[in-house]
Amino acid sequence: MENLRTLAAELCDLHHVMALMQWDQEVMLPVRGSAERAQQFATMSGIIHRKEVDPALGELISKAEFRGDSLSVIDLALVRKMRRNFDQSTKLPEEFVVEFSTLTSQALPVWVAARKNNDFASFAPLLTKMVAMSRQQADYLGYEEEPYDALLDLYEEGLTAARVRECFDALREPLRKMIAQVGSGHGGDDGVGEPFIVEEQIRFADQLLAKIGFDFERGRQDRSAHPFSTGLGGCDQRVTNRYNPQSIEFIFSALHEGGHALYEQNVGVDLARTPLASGVSLGIHESQSRLWENIIGRSAPFWQHCFSSLRESFPAQFGNLALGDFMKIINGVHPGLIRVEADELSYNLHVLIRFELETALLDGSLQVADLPAAWNERYRDYLGVTVPSDSDGVLQDIHWAHGSFGYFPTYTIGNLASAQIWHAYCLFDLDHEATIAHGDFGKIRQWLSQQIYQHGSVYPPHELLLRVTGEELNPDYFLRYLEKKFL
Amino acid sequence: MENLRTLAAELCDLHHVMALMQWDQEVMLPVRGSAERAQQFATMSGIIHRKEVDPALGELISKAEFRGDSLSVIDLALVRKMRRNFDQSTKLPEEFVVEFSTLTSQALPVWVAARKNNDFASFAPLLTKMVAMSRQQADYLGYEEEPYDALLDLYEEGLTAARVRECFDALREPLRKMIAQVGSGHGGDDGVGEPFIVEEQIRFADQLLAKIGFDFERGRQDRSAHPFSTGLGGCDQRVTNRYNPQSIEFIFSALHEGGHALYEQNVGVDLARTPLASGVSLGIHESQSRLWENIIGRSAPFWQHCFSSLRESFPAQFGNLALGDFMKIINGVHPGLIRVEADELSYNLHVLIRFELETALLDGSLQVADLPAAWNERYRDYLGVTVPSDSDGVLQDIHWAHGSFGYFPTYTIGNLASAQIWHAYCLFDLDHEATIAHGDFGKIRQWLSQQIYQHGSVYPPHELLLRVTGEELNPDYFLRYLEKKFL
Repeated sequence: MENLRTLAAELCDLHHVMALMQWDQEVMLPVRGSAERAQQFATMSGIIHRKEVDPALGELISKAEFRGDSLSVIDLALVRKMRRNFDQSTKLPEEFVVEFSTLTSQALPVWVAARKNNDFASFAPLLTKMVAMSRQQADYLGYEEEPYDALLDLYEEGLTAARVRECFDALREPLRKMIAQVGSGHGGDDGVGEPFIVEEQIRFADQLLAKIGFDFERGRQDRSAHPFSTGLGGCDQRVTNRYNPQSIEFIFSALHEGGHALYEQNVGVDLARTPLASGVSLGIHESQSRLWENIIGRSAPFWQHCFSSLRESFPAQFGNLALGDFMKIINGVHPGLIRVEADELSYNLHVLIRFELETALLDGSLQVADLPAAWNERYRDYLGVTVPSDSDGVLQDIHWAHGSFGYFPTYTIGNLASAQIWHAYCLFDLDHEATIAHGDFGKIRQWLSQQIYQHGSVYPPHELLLRVTGEELNPDYFLRYLEKKFL
Repeated sequence: MENLRTLAAELCDLHHVMALMQWDQEVMLPVRGSAERAQQFATMSGIIHRKEVDPALGELISKAEFRGDSLSVIDLALVRKMRRNFDQSTKLPEEFVVEFSTLTSQALPVWVAARKNNDFASFAPLLTKMVAMSRQQADYLGYEEEPYDALLDLYEEGLTAARVRECFDALREPLRKMIAQVGSGHGGDDGVGEPFIVEEQIRFADQLLAKIGFDFERGRQDRSAHPFSTGLGGCDQRVTNRYNPQSIEFIFSALHEGGHALYEQNVGVDLARTPLASGVSLGIHESQSRLWENIIGRSAPFWQHCFSSLRESFPAQFGNLALGDFMKIINGVHPGLIRVEADELSYNLHVLIRFELETALLDGSLQVADLPAAWNERYRDYLGVTVPSDSDGVLQDIHWAHGSFGYFPTYTIGNLASAQIWHAYCLFDLDHEATIAHGDFGKIRQWLSQQIYQHGSVYPPHELLLRVTGEELNPDYFLRYLEKKFL
């Protein structure tokens, strides 16, 4: 067990070094430094991969498994997690991994150009290969019901296509109905006139993070092309944001990435330097970012607390705006073309469309050549919008170019789980609205830490949700949250 | 040879990753991230060390050496360099390396506290161990004449204590005489009154770097506690600076670190991802930083070119100052206590003192207990100053706490070489003053690239100097440079 922990700790260090390299690439790297950085990634990945598939590691895991019940809860979880990583790494033949990563490297720039030039045809051959290889990947990884389950499991342990389908079946009609009821354009326009001073945006974003409890002694906030959050260690959590002088999106990006970071910053110190010292799955992680961004961050009590400081920071934009009007702006409903700009009502329909299409691609019922038409048809049906170009349609997301099939559903899992978890919190804190309105975010953070954050990856995602909320993932909570908010 | 190159390339990548980790630690790391980062360093160092002492690597080197003359100049140099690295890594037993690095980790915080509290006695026992281990290190590494040679060679291949002694013997009296002649206080005070706006300092430092040809597409400038320059790859050269609102030191730090960076940015692309793709030694490197900082950067033609833009950036400070008075300020002579603040006339006496003391410590003729007295006595003798406290005396530099005996002389080697190389340039460009005054730094950079930069570590330092200047290191050039400038 001691040897296993040592190996785990070294792998942990190396993954954190990779995270630093990635963060630096997004935030700091000089424009012409990319090729060399890619080389450095390849070298580091090779070293990590050889360690991760080392048969000696497999033997240590087997021996530890044999000791089974004599292990502590944490050691048991460590062994389970390392078994999962080891199997995932060893089930894929090395040639396959190399071929897949070569394909990804080729596909990314082609996708970038295709999106820029609205030229799906140039991307189609690579996407066809990507589908075939993802299908093959599923076969290598193994599954019980459908190939797609193997891919889903990479991001959300134990999740199946059947379960995702059930969730979307529960969401599809109610969401369409609510959108129709609320009507497009609800909340009006967020054109706030005067441009925002970027330095002031940065200052306000830092304040917001501090308010919700981001620890700047164990993390930092910087600028990048796209906001993200990454962990370089338990004491080094980095979030980024982007600042558009025409928009207040930076506020919700800060809360979103801050939510991810709070999870990581509050993992128990007893898990440090183990693969358990991180959020357990993409879905659970997204539940935390969405909780802070949407459920708390777009709520009336939150802005009862924060609106005066927002006004002080941006008097030209908000000095004469009533709080109620601001609430309408930040909760507008505008079914549109772009997933990442979607409001809370329509967001999951964007994900649903992608889920339907990628499962169809993988089971062969949809050909890549027919993908744009299928995409556009569903956008018309589900969201009532006409897709004017593939650039703003099927080419908008990086995920497929990246070979990440099975990733999209975790966004919806996150949204559903956020409402379910928040419901549990509200039972614990009946004065939750006052808690927020008083800015007592420590109380919320403390509960989330006890229930979720501190456990890192000790419990599998479904088990964690069961412990926190007393039931399996249930889309009703999310629907009820939306109804209460929008109807 | 192909296998050797692959191994060399991987090691190169890993060293660049370590450089990123180090840069990030100085520039970005959250305050509480240090302990984890130390762990990550240890893991990475272990991986690199095991690769560097791998007997398979030794065999590849031996095989390549056997092929000898059939190799290209670059391959020969690569083999020579890898042999040097391999021997340096394998000659030290692993237990010794671990013990030494543990001692260093212990000594550094003790030195920091000792310096803060003016308490040499608390640092003395660790320094005593450090001396003993450095002596042992020299024995492991091997030497022909004196143990100190082995340590010198780590930083400046082929340099010997005897040669350093000759240089200092040539400098000692002329420098003392010149200082006496010029008189302390020459040039007067650099108290420029109005504090500098830091953002304006940063902008000006960026401008200066751009002026001398630093390529911002392959590098960046940031802030840190102490200015430094580091390479994360041939296309990723990073310099840092610090900005004190009371001082113009940032100008010379920018030129100094910029000089280091120009060297690295102009190494031939054919050397990329080999251990040859970097400046050949600390001394030659320092010759380039000093050339840009002092010989060019503190010259009258340089400020004929730059003074108007300096005035534009800082009108409150320099708007009414004559160029001649500015030149006096930046070339003031003030023999003092602190090496890093020393002027061009007294700087090398600071180094001389450290060289005399560290050789005496290593050959046993000086005991650590007697070091402060010996230090203070020499400062009185050589620089005419009374050392008021060990904090501003023997405890001022990090080098000994870091176990870096033999490092100091490379500063003086750099100063001497800078003047000798500049002399060669002046023979090539008789209009060198006009070249500088017109800001035609590309011409200078091109010559330096051809003569020095492009070769990376292909030629050993003494051979490089011989190729560029036609002779061995000769202190006369530096003395003549000082005479012409200050007398």
